[in-house]
Amino acid sequence: MPFIDENFLLKSDLAVELYESVKSLPIVDYHCHLDPAAIYADAQFENINRLWLAGDHYKWRLMRANGVAEELITGGAPEPDKFKAWCETIAGAIGNPLYHWAHLELKRYFDIDDTIDGGNWQSLYCKCNEYIKNELVRPSSIINKFNVEMIGTTDDPADTLSHHMNMKCTAKVLPTFRPGIVLKPDSADFAAYIKKLAAAGNSVIECFDDLLAVLSERIDFFNMTGCVSSDHSLEPGVPLICPCYTDSGAAIIFAKALRGEALTEKEKDEYKTRLLVWLGGQYKKKNWVMQLHIGALRNNNTRMFKKTGADSGFDSMCDIPIAIALSSLLDAVDQEHGLPKTVIYSLNPAFDDILSAAAGNFQTDECKVQWGCPWWFNDHKTGIKKHLTTTANHGMLPKFIGMLTDSRSFMSYTRHEYFRRILAQTIASWVNKGEYPNDTDRLISIMKSVAYSNAKEFFSHA
Amino acid sequence: MPFIDENFLLKSDLAVELYESVKSLPIVDYHCHLDPAAIYADAQFENINRLWLAGDHYKWRLMRANGVAEELITGGAPEPDKFKAWCETIAGAIGNPLYHWAHLELKRYFDIDDTIDGGNWQSLYCKCNEYIKNELVRPSSIINKFNVEMIGTTDDPADTLSHHMNMKCTAKVLPTFRPGIVLKPDSADFAAYIKKLAAAGNSVIECFDDLLAVLSERIDFFNMTGCVSSDHSLEPGVPLICPCYTDSGAAIIFAKALRGEALTEKEKDEYKTRLLVWLGGQYKKKNWVMQLHIGALRNNNTRMFKKTGADSGFDSMCDIPIAIALSSLLDAVDQEHGLPKTVIYSLNPAFDDILSAAAGNFQTDECKVQWGCPWWFNDHKTGIKKHLTTTANHGMLPKFIGMLTDSRSFMSYTRHEYFRRILAQTIASWVNKGEYPNDTDRLISIMKSVAYSNAKEFFSHA
Amino acid sequence: MPFIDENFLLKSDLAVELYESVKSLPIVDYHCHLDPAAIYADAQFENINRLWLAGDHYKWRLMRANGVAEELITGGAPEPDKFKAWCETIAGAIGNPLYHWAHLELKRYFDIDDTIDGGNWQSLYCKCNEYIKNELVRPSSIINKFNVEMIGTTDDPADTLSHHMNMKCTAKVLPTFRPGIVLKPDSADFAAYIKKLAAAGNSVIECFDDLLAVLSERIDFFNMTGCVSSDHSLEPGVPLICPCYTDSGAAIIFAKALRGEALTEKEKDEYKTRLLVWLGGQYKKKNWVMQLHIGALRNNNTRMFKKTGADSGFDSMCDIPIAIALSSLLDAVDQEHGLPKTVIYSLNPAFDDILSAAAGNFQTDECKVQWGCPWWFNDHKTGIKKHLTTTANHGMLPKFIGMLTDSRSFMSYTRHEYFRRILAQTIASWVNKGEYPNDTDRLISIMKSVAYSNAKEFFSHA
Repeated sequence: MPFIDENFLLKSDLAVELYESVKSLPIVDYHCHLDPAAIYADAQFENINRLWLAGDHYKWRLMRANGVAEELITGGAPEPDKFKAWCETIAGAIGNPLYHWAHLELKRYFDIDDTIDGGNWQSLYCKCNEYIKNELVRPSSIINKFNVEMIGTTDDPADTLSHHMNMKCTAKVLPTFRPGIVLKPDSADFAAYIKKLAAAGNSVIECFDDLLAVLSERIDFFNMTGCVSSDHSLEPGVPLICPCYTDSGAAIIFAKALRGEALTEKEKDEYKTRLLVWLGGQYKKKNWVMQLHIGALRNNNTRMFKKTGADSGFDSMCDIPIAIALSSLLDAVDQEHGLPKTVIYSLNPAFDDILSAAAGNFQTDECKVQWGCPWWFNDHKTGIKKHLTTTANHGMLPKFIGMLTDSRSFMSYTRHEYFRRILAQTIASWVNKGEYPNDTDRLISIMKSVAYSNAKEFFSHA
Repeated sequence: MPFIDENFLLKSDLAVELYESVKSLPIVDYHCHLDPAAIYADAQFENINRLWLAGDHYKWRLMRANGVAEELITGGAPEPDKFKAWCETIAGAIGNPLYHWAHLELKRYFDIDDTIDGGNWQSLYCKCNEYIKNELVRPSSIINKFNVEMIGTTDDPADTLSHHMNMKCTAKVLPTFRPGIVLKPDSADFAAYIKKLAAAGNSVIECFDDLLAVLSERIDFFNMTGCVSSDHSLEPGVPLICPCYTDSGAAIIFAKALRGEALTEKEKDEYKTRLLVWLGGQYKKKNWVMQLHIGALRNNNTRMFKKTGADSGFDSMCDIPIAIALSSLLDAVDQEHGLPKTVIYSLNPAFDDILSAAAGNFQTDECKVQWGCPWWFNDHKTGIKKHLTTTANHGMLPKFIGMLTDSRSFMSYTRHEYFRRILAQTIASWVNKGEYPNDTDRLISIMKSVAYSNAKEFFSHA
Repeated sequence: MPFIDENFLLKSDLAVELYESVKSLPIVDYHCHLDPAAIYADAQFENINRLWLAGDHYKWRLMRANGVAEELITGGAPEPDKFKAWCETIAGAIGNPLYHWAHLELKRYFDIDDTIDGGNWQSLYCKCNEYIKNELVRPSSIINKFNVEMIGTTDDPADTLSHHMNMKCTAKVLPTFRPGIVLKPDSADFAAYIKKLAAAGNSVIECFDDLLAVLSERIDFFNMTGCVSSDHSLEPGVPLICPCYTDSGAAIIFAKALRGEALTEKEKDEYKTRLLVWLGGQYKKKNWVMQLHIGALRNNNTRMFKKTGADSGFDSMCDIPIAIALSSLLDAVDQEHGLPKTVIYSLNPAFDDILSAAAGNFQTDECKVQWGCPWWFNDHKTGIKKHLTTTANHGMLPKFIGMLTDSRSFMSYTRHEYFRRILAQTIASWVNKGEYPNDTDRLISIMKSVAYSNAKEFFSHA
């Protein structure tokens, strides 16, 4: 069997035909963690490690699972040694999505068809670095090469968005409004952050009303800068809405939090849900998308957290029940303001059916809710296939907004190729089993919608 | 690949042979939501919309997911427009079970082999309405056509069962005893319902003992009318049994509830579990089946609830842990009275293994417990295959009581065909992989048991 | 299709080749419930029932699911009748792992190729008993035949390990340190057990410090006797760690428990987690493996518990959330002592991704954590395949320590064959789909690691 050839993951003529129909479509990467400063600066990458390994905790985690010493991962080991350790790891990573991504990345970014076999790391290291040197690889050339049409970065409400405003890039680089600490009233940094937020808004925040005023101003500002979407990480689960919450209740809790007083769980939930519901109303007014990422359980290894900090590969997923809280939250926003366009993502795949069904509860001609694509630990062939199947089982697959990279790396655009291949193969397999008619026009139209145009339309002010 | 032909879902000669062995067997539809008044009246359907779309919230939900305006779903739009919107929706519903059901329904009910392609809705609309007119389509003719042997309706304990008693139908139309509000002591309608129940029993209910006396009388009455089964919707989860509950404790809580006083969660659980355990004992005496439907989360969209009411497509599933509560409940019934024949269903498929394992804890020569077939959101090819596989992994598949429609529509009998095809294909695929011997007699015997005779036997007083 | 032939479960030449490369490797059965006294005594088995049916609650449960009377399972029915009932059950158990195991067992233990068809039980009964008589079947001959290299039994800290110390066996028979009642301060037997434990350590336990001293001595003793591993059954879930626990707090709770006073849930959790964290530190010092079996829900059927006792087939699984508690527990051990080599097993497969991700949080060059293989209700083809796929999706499959029997029976070694076949088929199918290169040397190396050498290395003091 040829290995990762042009028909990778495509097992029938129809699958090939369907993939061909979307392979050259632009990429709408509506949610990622690329650094706007890096896109703006458009600096050439120093070497393959900087481009490929730096900051990528997916890879770090895999190397640790392979027994690689931390020195060779986040430590001070020489660059070639780190690259070697990575190649030796990936060479044995049978069945892991990083195995497929890494090879697709070598092919599509560097025109290298070699299989990473653990023994050829030196040759790969040279080829990649040579390529980077010769081709002047930089963000803009990558974005061009992959026909990236839109990039949704992830930005703090206090951000100046100076890079976004001055961006010269063929893709639309749009900020995403992501309130973090403002929704964590028990954070040690809460008061400091509120001060920073006030400063960003050229204002002062002394009470809950001030907070809403500044947030409102920040939303206006983000909107003017092209923002079409917000994002929230609900950790470790969805806060339980208090049916009797009020602005005045939230105001009292906010005041306590500002003073650094301890809050009860109920107070935290009340504050968070009050603010989330209010924010939902603001998003609705702007016709933004509200994204809810549910269930990350972060920094589980304290020893390593002290050593390598956050986002370095020691996160996992939570299993606190979410169905009632999520339903109540969406319903509260809907009742008060009308629910904005919404995407709900679950890190724990045991909640997949919960989210898929919950999304269906709020589909009306007045609002559109999506169960977002497989996230993080679920972003592999099995997870994507399961997501497409469950989405189809419960609703209308042709309306699905499809894939995003969620990545911190410029090397991740091949994940869209990966998704498009799996989408083509999944749909073709249903048709080939006689479960849907072989109406090529309609099938291609579904492919194009899910691979590109649904996301484009969803993430717009229109 | 031919689309939905006679070998639909059957991928080998053996699968075809196995399906052939059961395709003409009668249908025991032991749990559905058909209106006994409609079966009794046996009126001709006015048109295809009345027969196909009215009251079917599965279809409504899919149309909403497709972006159809509510006016065309539950609103006042002209009938042809509604039919058009439905056809356009289903035409694109790749992978959805409604896609398969809709085409099987056209074939088996109307002899229409056309593929719904979105463009041919007018022709379909005419053909179907013509057929209805010419053939005088009515409940009795449908029940005859599909060889339906038994229909288990869903009935309130206060019901007069007048339709059941006077039913002229080739199928046995049996009531199912489904206590609802009587197990919801916090319902606003509680006191009014208790009054109604008392009236149905020609009695007065002033205390818990009165309640039990009237329920006992109603159970006798249902039993005389042919009832072989009860049903309970445990929402949003299984109430936690209180090991020290007593009749006198339940009596106090009942009195409070009757007076409209607020109850604590613990009081509600205590009342519910006390009553459930007592009811289990009554069912055991009658040799009825006790059905427990676990985990529906209803009416999640308040705005739409006000517009379209209950059961209109805004329900989903809950994820509150159930293992300990369910085990305690079954054990309590078993200890006090001996567990009756029992079927447990989960709406959340993440609980599938919990239920399958819990059922196995109570299999003895004195009682039979079944993990019920995929329900509602899980009633698709993936869900049915998973159910058959998990049932086989954990126990004896040949003892499974198989499929039901759970439907509000006379158009759903093809779901039994759907299930029988998937059953045949699943079993054949195991045999074809060399995992079970190709002993045709035994295989056909398994097919017949699961497709028909197990349910027939289970849902009888014998 | 030939049924369970030499290529059972192997669907390609590559799968056959991969299986061949490991089929004769020794077995490291690092976790089972064999009785060390039986291995030590090495007595011939009286008959096939004693060897095959006695004490095997998997089989009993299946027979109950098939409607067999308890008299024929755990009761006093004549031996041939019991064997007949078992054969009739297994003959129909399509899709159940016991079906496959039973046939592999007949082949590999008795050279019987017959298919159990329900009608041939008498012939099988005679053949097996004849074989046992002629071949003098005893533990030692079975262990030799299957090339068993290591057996990890399950032993109480108070055990004298006299059998282990005097064992004459070609396999290393190593005790596993499994604290039970000492971690159940609410057990009715708590005080009595503590007394017994003290006696085993030739000491007196009057306070928490005494307890730790005796446990420390017992760990030394187990270690000297070859122990490389501990085991804990966390039931029904993982106790929630209290961030402010102290030895003095645990000491107070221990004193209350010794006096038989009732403990709050919080006190129980505090005591358990304090002791677990301390034990983790002890295991780390010895370079033992800490095994955590999570989520058994035992003795759910009180009526049958009174009749047949514990471990007789009335257990199932729990669904209390575990993510936060498990993460906190592992982190606490890691912070205080450095985490020992650890294996986490879940009985509820809905937690699979939680465990797989949690294990990944503690992979560093200083500690190794494994998500343990499918346990009990999950130990079937579907479960094993899912485990291999999820392990590969989340990390490094070649580092997986593979299979164990977890069995109470000498008849279970073919489960390693079953696992090795599924492993070969799973890996081969990925390669045959072009998702990993056909590099035979590397593939065989992965096979050998997972089927044998990883477990050998992990379960050693090295």
